[in-house]
Amino acid sequence: MNAMHKLLASVHSPAVLRSMSLAELNQLADEIRDVLCNLLGTRSAHFASNLGVVELCLALHSVFDFSRDRLIWDTGHQIYPHKLVTGRYPEFGTIRTKGGLMGYPNPAESPYDLFMTGHAGASVSTLLGLHVGDALRGAPDRCAVAVIGDGSFPSGMVFEAMNNAGAIQQKILMILNDNKMSICPRVGGLASYLDRLRTNPVYTGLKNEVVRALNKMPVLGDPAERFLAQIKEGIKAGLHGGMLFEDLGFRYIGPIDGHNIGLLRKYLQMVKSQSDHVLLHVVTEKGHGFQPAAEDPTFFHTPPVFVADHGKAIPKPAGSSHSYTRIMRDAILAQMRAHESVTVLTAAMCQGNMLEPVRDEFPDRFFDTGICEAHTVAFAAGLAKAGLRPIVDIYSTFLQRAYDQVFQEVTLQNLPVVFTIDRAGLTGPDGPTHHGVFDLAYMRIFPHMVVMAPGDAQDVAPMLDFALGQAGPCAMRYPKASALSIQREVAPVQLGRAEVLRWGPDGAILCCGTLLHDCVQAANTLRQQGLNLGVVNARFAKPLDHEVVARALRECRFLVTVEEGTLLGGFGSAVLEVACSQGWDTSRIVRLGIPDQFIEHGERAELLADLRLDAPGIAQVCRALAQRVDRQPPRSATPKTQQSGPRVP
Amino acid sequence: MNAMHKLLASVHSPAVLRSMSLAELNQLADEIRDVLCNLLGTRSAHFASNLGVVELCLALHSVFDFSRDRLIWDTGHQIYPHKLVTGRYPEFGTIRTKGGLMGYPNPAESPYDLFMTGHAGASVSTLLGLHVGDALRGAPDRCAVAVIGDGSFPSGMVFEAMNNAGAIQQKILMILNDNKMSICPRVGGLASYLDRLRTNPVYTGLKNEVVRALNKMPVLGDPAERFLAQIKEGIKAGLHGGMLFEDLGFRYIGPIDGHNIGLLRKYLQMVKSQSDHVLLHVVTEKGHGFQPAAEDPTFFHTPPVFVADHGKAIPKPAGSSHSYTRIMRDAILAQMRAHESVTVLTAAMCQGNMLEPVRDEFPDRFFDTGICEAHTVAFAAGLAKAGLRPIVDIYSTFLQRAYDQVFQEVTLQNLPVVFTIDRAGLTGPDGPTHHGVFDLAYMRIFPHMVVMAPGDAQDVAPMLDFALGQAGPCAMRYPKASALSIQREVAPVQLGRAEVLRWGPDGAILCCGTLLHDCVQAANTLRQQGLNLGVVNARFAKPLDHEVVARALRECRFLVTVEEGTLLGGFGSAVLEVACSQGWDTSRIVRLGIPDQFIEHGERAELLADLRLDAPGIAQVCRALAQRVDRQPPRSATPKTQQSGPRVP
Repeated sequence: MNAMHKLLASVHSPAVLRSMSLAELNQLADEIRDVLCNLLGTRSAHFASNLGVVELCLALHSVFDFSRDRLIWDTGHQIYPHKLVTGRYPEFGTIRTKGGLMGYPNPAESPYDLFMTGHAGASVSTLLGLHVGDALRGAPDRCAVAVIGDGSFPSGMVFEAMNNAGAIQQKILMILNDNKMSICPRVGGLASYLDRLRTNPVYTGLKNEVVRALNKMPVLGDPAERFLAQIKEGIKAGLHGGMLFEDLGFRYIGPIDGHNIGLLRKYLQMVKSQSDHVLLHVVTEKGHGFQPAAEDPTFFHTPPVFVADHGKAIPKPAGSSHSYTRIMRDAILAQMRAHESVTVLTAAMCQGNMLEPVRDEFPDRFFDTGICEAHTVAFAAGLAKAGLRPIVDIYSTFLQRAYDQVFQEVTLQNLPVVFTIDRAGLTGPDGPTHHGVFDLAYMRIFPHMVVMAPGDAQDVAPMLDFALGQAGPCAMRYPKASALSIQREVAPVQLGRAEVLRWGPDGAILCCGTLLHDCVQAANTLRQQGLNLGVVNARFAKPLDHEVVARALRECRFLVTVEEGTLLGGFGSAVLEVACSQGWDTSRIVRLGIPDQFIEHGERAELLADLRLDAPGIAQVCRALAQRVDRQPPRSATPKTQQSGPRVP
Repeated sequence: MNAMHKLLASVHSPAVLRSMSLAELNQLADEIRDVLCNLLGTRSAHFASNLGVVELCLALHSVFDFSRDRLIWDTGHQIYPHKLVTGRYPEFGTIRTKGGLMGYPNPAESPYDLFMTGHAGASVSTLLGLHVGDALRGAPDRCAVAVIGDGSFPSGMVFEAMNNAGAIQQKILMILNDNKMSICPRVGGLASYLDRLRTNPVYTGLKNEVVRALNKMPVLGDPAERFLAQIKEGIKAGLHGGMLFEDLGFRYIGPIDGHNIGLLRKYLQMVKSQSDHVLLHVVTEKGHGFQPAAEDPTFFHTPPVFVADHGKAIPKPAGSSHSYTRIMRDAILAQMRAHESVTVLTAAMCQGNMLEPVRDEFPDRFFDTGICEAHTVAFAAGLAKAGLRPIVDIYSTFLQRAYDQVFQEVTLQNLPVVFTIDRAGLTGPDGPTHHGVFDLAYMRIFPHMVVMAPGDAQDVAPMLDFALGQAGPCAMRYPKASALSIQREVAPVQLGRAEVLRWGPDGAILCCGTLLHDCVQAANTLRQQGLNLGVVNARFAKPLDHEVVARALRECRFLVTVEEGTLLGGFGSAVLEVACSQGWDTSRIVRLGIPDQFIEHGERAELLADLRLDAPGIAQVCRALAQRVDRQPPRSATPKTQQSGPRVP
């Protein structure tokens, strides 16, 4: 609590906003901005987008009653003001910390959060479903509102939902929060269209001229009535803009100033008792009210910790370590310099993937498609078919949006598209919508796909080089983490070959991915305790190194697999499949990974420790396993009859 | 070959079309139609859509040179005329048979087929990729054409691609093949819009009136220049329509008659040297030229075998067995009659899923979203959140299009959406784009998801009833096959419980899905040969019945898992995971399923037999396995130390 937030502290329910004066709402907006700026002094969080929707949020809650009406903030990263006025101001300081508030909507926190989200573009679909559902359940009067940014707008599912809305009787209100930005400035036909809308005469103050001109237009003679109607529609397009939305069956209203609470309330009141689907075009400024953020909203999308000092942002000193993201970016840049055929694609994550230098140096071979993962992957397939070597640089969780394109456009054609899967594993404070724990399991099931994970920083560049040399699709995954290097003579990357870092008779740790460093640490600890374990850098989840599995089962007393991914169907399961199909005993294999539950938000290290996926946890598992197998006689991993049994067809 | 197809038989390359007269092209169209009608007398195939594009196909090949230029038929089911004129007339009789031509584009057949497809909406993305790739590779003059039906058009990725095209310098030609149909008549905002376009004055012959009216319009005074431009744009919209596409950066031309080869050629020539993206709106009639198909294009989308007799279609007598699809439809209908909260959703597969009676009886609780799977699943999540019990009735392979929505909108929220996954397994003549072999593997990895497969026809209704009684998401999968019933007293469906049909000491067959009938047959055969095997109806891939696995490993000499799905990460892998996490020996487990390769087209029974997934194959595997384990001493499946080891966290 803070004495400066007197009004905000009194908002225990958004209901009170409905009786507030405009002056009070403006005061509330100031207090909310102050809370946001203070928060950002303590930790990294979504910032500019939240500053941009303060007034819109207050106007919405002061016009609608969202204890009955339905409100969905698309994606959900801009939900902070909403959390502050829906009873969560007291806990707001805990946001994005383990056990604290989520940085995204969370139904477990509040009935005012309807869906836990984090991926863009789903709001219109879920809202339509809710609204139709309410009507079927006898409450058609509950209003339905989605707020969606212009960055999310090109997502295909938004278009699918708007198209489907045309066939649905219950009407919704879409608010297009147009701040001219995705995370980076967004591009494409729709972006240009929105730019044109913002210059239309109503918005730019030419309205009087329009009315004058219209008065000069004659009543036409007697053309076919249908044609007359079309001319009028055409003029309407010239007047209002928004025909694209009108053509899809949405009444277009706007654009209006999204930082004027009074104006917003007036329009929201007007469209509340709508008999059509409405798209209300609201223009906001990302970072509004905090000059540094308004001037550089890309940096301030999720800025590092800084101190707001009299309207200036003083960054706190950060560590100097490099992330895997940056090491991959450098590897990509090197490949693009060396090979003209290499291209790179991002679905609006230019900043997140640190690709700005690639974009600037190779504008012709860099493609930012907007938040359109499905298109991105299919587009990459087209490039590959034309003879280029596309790299799709994408977050693990967002790749799920393009799953069918990975299937049909890439693996079914066996095209050489490289997927550099960033944010694979636990991503930390963003939570379950952003953790990338499923990719090993879902990517390896498609024929032709090679699935890799570098064991440390030194693996990244050679692995990318290897991937770009393959004739078919390859994926390589790495976490959102500081990159570590394991001292060794790095073995060359060869298809389906693991790298044995050391060997030990007591057990083997087979690690797929960058937890390798923890595995080495665990082995070091255990060696001091008299246990001599081998550590293997698996590198390939597919094709798996059969020989190294066979050797471990033959020579070691147990085998532990380690991965930062789901235990269901993941790397460890691939090891079991190989062992089973060879007729080997798997009773001395233990798999470590992400269990079958959604993992909350928190610092990555905290979350990994909870799951025993850090050095102490891995050591503990190995120690217990060593004690267990002590009580069992060693078994042959390769039964003599292994050649004679039926092999799976 | 057929004497009536003299001209067609001479078309060894599409290059000859470029020198043909209009009369010859029309003659060729007649011959192609004759080939199509004859084919449909021999087997079920895509029909009405192919009749609809004959003229368009000929016009395209007579204007472009697709040995250099790029042509993609979206989805690809309408590719038959294209196959006939690109050198495949001699083998055309083999289409959709094992080892013969595919019913979809296939790059292995011809360089004129660029991508193997079958899922809708990807053409614009891959075409853009190809075209940009060609330009980067130094061949910017290669033209790029996509033909896309109005049914595919609402797919989100089409919109994503068109939006992205706005940012791309290389220009493409999209041909909107508007036949007013998906498979069933399509609905939604875009459909209404296309209807309006078709009534515009240019197309309906009012052009002269338009010109007259325009001449009457005065030169306006002196409004702001920007406004003048907008009025003109508006008038253009009234004249031409197509502003929706123009707003996205595509020049809209049309609509034009898609059965007039001369007209088509004229327009194609005109747009060939385009400097903008162009959307050419072509109106065709599904089933054109064959009266019964034109009158009922839904039935004739993929009609059963019939004989074309003097312009009439005489269906050949069909079998009387019921498909799993139909049994599921009846179960859905019964649930909808019993429970007001049950709703059903389809993504344009009303006919394929036989949902017409549901649509007709419950129009308010039936939702056809068009080919928009991502939206469909998110929409269902909204319905569930509002308290309804939605059933998403969808093909296995198309559910991949909504993978991220299954993750974020359904499982992450733990919402009670039921997925009835049709066409799960090998679907037969459609081939790899339509086989549904990945769903067991990709669905079970998400927390909260229950994954089931009925063992026979009698399981279907109780399993759906069970699913609708769950508080969270459930999926149940079943194949495109005639439904069989296994004589038994059917055990009630209970969460995570398998149904033991019989028990035998020699081995156990644990089957997930409708191959259960073959497993029973295999066991019967082997019993006559002195082997006494148990057969278990697994029912649940998740949660798996641990006890039945334990019992089988304890009491039987081997365990065979059987599934009609990928061996990577599927049901058998789930069994291995359970066994491993319990410390049980898996060396006597053999998994049968789909190997790590794309399976070609052919009759389902043929394909299953090749993979030893029929009764003889299963019996053969079991027999060999029994011989193998004869030579090994029996092993305890549950080591004494199983309680003491570390459990996976």
